[in-house]
Amino acid sequence: LCLETINEIIPPCDPTADDSLYHICIAAISLVVMLILAILARGTKTKGLLGLLSPVNFLDHTQHKGLAVAVFGVLLCKLWGLVISPNPLPFTKDAENKQNWVILGVFYYPALYYPLLACGTLHNKVGYVLGSLLSWTHFGVLVWQKIDCPKTPLIHKHYLLFSSLPQIACLAFLSFQYPLLLFKGLKGTEKNNATEDLSSSYYKDYVKKMFRKKKPTKISTSSTETPKLPQRIIDTVKSYIYTPEEAFRFPLKLAISGVVSFITLYQVGLLLISVVVPPLQIARAGVDEDIANVLAGFRIMLSPDKHEVVRIVVYYMWCVEVCFISAMTLSTLVNLAMLMRSMVLHRSNLKGLYRGDIYNVYNCQRSIRASRPALVCWMGYTSFTAAHVCIGMIIQTMVFFLCLLITVFLIIIPVLHRQNLFLFQLLPFWLMILLAVLLQHVTARFCFIKKTAGTRDLDNRGNLFLLTYLLFPVNVLIGVLLALWRMIITALFNIVHMGRMDISLLNRNVEAFDPAYRCYAHYLKIEVSQSHPVMKAFCGMLLQSVGQDGSTAQRSRDAEEGIQLVQQEKKQHKVSSAKRARGHWHLLYTLVNNPSLVGTRKHFQRQTAESFLNGSLNRSTKEGSKEEVATKKAEAAATS
Amino acid sequence: LCLETINEIIPPCDPTADDSLYHICIAAISLVVMLILAILARGTKTKGLLGLLSPVNFLDHTQHKGLAVAVFGVLLCKLWGLVISPNPLPFTKDAENKQNWVILGVFYYPALYYPLLACGTLHNKVGYVLGSLLSWTHFGVLVWQKIDCPKTPLIHKHYLLFSSLPQIACLAFLSFQYPLLLFKGLKGTEKNNATEDLSSSYYKDYVKKMFRKKKPTKISTSSTETPKLPQRIIDTVKSYIYTPEEAFRFPLKLAISGVVSFITLYQVGLLLISVVVPPLQIARAGVDEDIANVLAGFRIMLSPDKHEVVRIVVYYMWCVEVCFISAMTLSTLVNLAMLMRSMVLHRSNLKGLYRGDIYNVYNCQRSIRASRPALVCWMGYTSFTAAHVCIGMIIQTMVFFLCLLITVFLIIIPVLHRQNLFLFQLLPFWLMILLAVLLQHVTARFCFIKKTAGTRDLDNRGNLFLLTYLLFPVNVLIGVLLALWRMIITALFNIVHMGRMDISLLNRNVEAFDPAYRCYAHYLKIEVSQSHPVMKAFCGMLLQSVGQDGSTAQRSRDAEEGIQLVQQEKKQHKVSSAKRARGHWHLLYTLVNNPSLVGTRKHFQRQTAESFLNGSLNRSTKEGSKEEVATKKAEAAATS
Repeated sequence: LCLETINEIIPPCDPTADDSLYHICIAAISLVVMLILAILARGTKTKGLLGLLSPVNFLDHTQHKGLAVAVFGVLLCKLWGLVISPNPLPFTKDAENKQNWVILGVFYYPALYYPLLACGTLHNKVGYVLGSLLSWTHFGVLVWQKIDCPKTPLIHKHYLLFSSLPQIACLAFLSFQYPLLLFKGLKGTEKNNATEDLSSSYYKDYVKKMFRKKKPTKISTSSTETPKLPQRIIDTVKSYIYTPEEAFRFPLKLAISGVVSFITLYQVGLLLISVVVPPLQIARAGVDEDIANVLAGFRIMLSPDKHEVVRIVVYYMWCVEVCFISAMTLSTLVNLAMLMRSMVLHRSNLKGLYRGDIYNVYNCQRSIRASRPALVCWMGYTSFTAAHVCIGMIIQTMVFFLCLLITVFLIIIPVLHRQNLFLFQLLPFWLMILLAVLLQHVTARFCFIKKTAGTRDLDNRGNLFLLTYLLFPVNVLIGVLLALWRMIITALFNIVHMGRMDISLLNRNVEAFDPAYRCYAHYLKIEVSQSHPVMKAFCGMLLQSVGQDGSTAQRSRDAEEGIQLVQQEKKQHKVSSAKRARGHWHLLYTLVNNPSLVGTRKHFQRQTAESFLNGSLNRSTKEGSKEEVATKKAEAAATS
Repeated sequence: LCLETINEIIPPCDPTADDSLYHICIAAISLVVMLILAILARGTKTKGLLGLLSPVNFLDHTQHKGLAVAVFGVLLCKLWGLVISPNPLPFTKDAENKQNWVILGVFYYPALYYPLLACGTLHNKVGYVLGSLLSWTHFGVLVWQKIDCPKTPLIHKHYLLFSSLPQIACLAFLSFQYPLLLFKGLKGTEKNNATEDLSSSYYKDYVKKMFRKKKPTKISTSSTETPKLPQRIIDTVKSYIYTPEEAFRFPLKLAISGVVSFITLYQVGLLLISVVVPPLQIARAGVDEDIANVLAGFRIMLSPDKHEVVRIVVYYMWCVEVCFISAMTLSTLVNLAMLMRSMVLHRSNLKGLYRGDIYNVYNCQRSIRASRPALVCWMGYTSFTAAHVCIGMIIQTMVFFLCLLITVFLIIIPVLHRQNLFLFQLLPFWLMILLAVLLQHVTARFCFIKKTAGTRDLDNRGNLFLLTYLLFPVNVLIGVLLALWRMIITALFNIVHMGRMDISLLNRNVEAFDPAYRCYAHYLKIEVSQSHPVMKAFCGMLLQSVGQDGSTAQRSRDAEEGIQLVQQEKKQHKVSSAKRARGHWHLLYTLVNNPSLVGTRKHFQRQTAESFLNGSLNRSTKEGSKEEVATKKAEAAATS
């Protein structure tokens, strides 16, 4: 009876909303929506077609991130389905050329969901209406299909249902968000919040907070007392808990990476559970007395009684199942903790680089500016995060599962049955090792170190050398244990941190050979060089002052052109001398507090003498003598 | 015929010089030698019993290292035999309580070979004669035993013979060295070379060279041009080749570690070859047509013809054998390269710490002084090196063997037989990945990066964001490949560097959790704080000037008390004011050029204001502004 419920045969199920028909329709609808949007875009002059073709500004910190995050989530779920399902694309049932269909699907799905993003970019009521309709259609059809066919024969009867949950959630968010935007657009409250990046108050708040916060941080760094153990443990735990800070927002790419990593965790966990646990349960339910004969064929005699054999085998299989589920849970928890820790580190790294603390972040001096490899890494960063979390979690689960199996079957079960206690048979050996270690520590503490007048020095050198010689063979044996411990701790550390791109798994001298860390380092470069909050605050102020003059009021709306404006400003000579003085003053203040920006200034790079000064300043910044740097910088900026 | 020669049965062989009898005799002789030496030691006043009880001065850079290195080598070989052989101690054939005998042996052998070291410490002709006799006895009996019984049944017929070769070499070196010392002692040329550490010219040469070499190094650091690729490859290769430098000698502990590592490599390699290869050869020779039936039992049909099956199986077994031997050779070569690289790094680390470059070596500020954990790590360092090389080599061989097996049986053989070419079936997939990567690189280079007036900035942001969105799914697939590559490179790096203690296998922030690296860092602390060459040169000069006064001429012979003398000097007030001025001047010079010593000065630690100055100086030293430091230090030293 139990077997039947588990081995239940699921008939192939065709939903009322046929997938291929639905996809043909929705693709056509999406095309129509894009055409309508293009016509609308021609009407408005500010963004136009260019805005429609780049609906996501990845370098914007202040825009509402929900839309982009949700679309990326949907895309990831679709990609996952593409790889898992035997017939990847809905148009065809051709399972032989799966590879080609996957390649096609990899480009089809981003195009399919593109209108969902594009509808939000025009900040137009029609766009919001179209977005609402489109997201409702996607959401409605998906939910309808899942209600029609909750059970599928693939992997596990409910696998596809659970697997589509994140997709449903993302689409539900979109279906809720577009009407909300439409409602805000009708009430007129939405205008300046989401679009005008530079005129947002975020950057100004950041600069204000930076000025305010200087003193408390200085005091905390100057107190170099080593904290006590409980305090240190609390600090370590705190460093793994992400608490939002008022004056700091994540770049859009990092926000997407976080959500995408979370969805990947869910999908990998679900897949692992669905693939391994149900077959184990079926096998466990199917164990009968034949198993005794099969085992006897391999000359394994668990018990003379066949019922007893069945009981033992079922018990062992239950142990394996428990081990697997524990390993999976452990791995998920570890990855969640790592995700949080990553967010803490991202924030501190970004803030450090904004401050110009390049050495602390990279462990070497680097120029923070756009370059080819940096741009390629920046483009792929979000995707690479997802892939690393996926591979990391699979490996973690496998390794934890193996370790748990070894612990249970080689240590716990033998101890419970009082067999194979080989570790306890080696008791004299362990005792000798322990005594040798103790002897060295005690003699080192009380015989060989002499404290006189605040200094510590060696004492009884002769005896120290004698002991070192006599304990040489014992120490070799201790060294073997240390080497094994080193192996375990290194492997464990690397496996636990496999899914994290923000730290290198290699030694500090060869950090850059770790491809994931290299990618992260490059990503940070682009992010910091292109969206430094102080630079943006400065650009925003410039735009405002230009807007007050009224000469280029139209242009001030276009957030993208903020930086180009700075260059044009000098050519135009329209700004009055008082304004120009104010501008210089702003520039000076910005540069003083953000030394990393100095390197990107045109004048600065031409003059070698000053670039040398810059280098030495960068280095001295690390040491915290900010006042000196400020004065020198002010001089340098004043002369340039 | 072939089988018989391989399966040759080796009769148990009892050498004429019975091992247990020999050990009882030699232990008694050693005891007598020690008694004679003790009586002799009472006669001489300078070293006495204390010198006899600590025959090795591990903190001495200038003494003749041969004796100590050879005895440690013999000891390691004995320990190896203790662990491998079924009856560890020669007195008993009791194989049941092997564990207890091993524990006894671990303490017995250092005591047994102790007189071989002690005979050299008194620098006495009688000592040399006794040492010669003792080493000749050890050497003679061992060679006699090996000639009597070259073949033993353990592991492989010649295993024990080859395994004892390093031991024979070390004993031969001792048997040659003691007569040489005796000869030198008779001629009177030996006196001051080996004993008087402080009066050696090595330390003075070191200081002289330090003063001389300052300018060339400064020029090389200021030229920050990045070298070209061939030059960088040559530099990398050079950094793995150890070339002796004139004015630098290794500490004794490092010299012993090097030789001990080398012997460990030899022993592990020999054991691996002896355990694996002969059984494989026997199995290969024993393959007959029955194998076809056995394989058929497992439903493996290699060929319908039985002769053909035998041929294939023999070929496959030959492949396995070749793979294993290649893996072992590779691992040995890798470890030899690592040993050389370690020596280069030891030297640069020691020199760096002598200069006070603490941050570069440890990646953080640390106080270089004796402490309990540091002392324990210092005591065990040599032994731990041997253990790590042993474990490292075993793991390397296993991993390389597995990798080679996978390469040969899953890639090379299928490609040769044109089967299972699954990697080639995925060609469209690889093509897509390649195209996507190329597309990103080309567009990043030519479309999205704009060079204007020496600066590089982003261009076409809209299209960049669009491309990033569209390539998201492809990049996830690329990310999976990257993650796998990360896994491989990390594992390979850690496995290759497993045997090296001088680098941490962990990320730079958690370096200290690697037990081996932590031990090495602590070891360096003791070594530098206790045997800084400039400090020793300074002590030597002080001793000389004291010796010129003639007041404490006797004492000046005892090298150990050099440092205590410095402290006593002030209390005695015997030195004239001119001498004291000279002493101050020496002190000043020493401190200026070795900032790390400043921290260990008594006066300095009491005054917090000055210790702050010291801290800031240490940091600024890192940046190479030596002149400033020198002046400030001079002021500080003058005031103290």
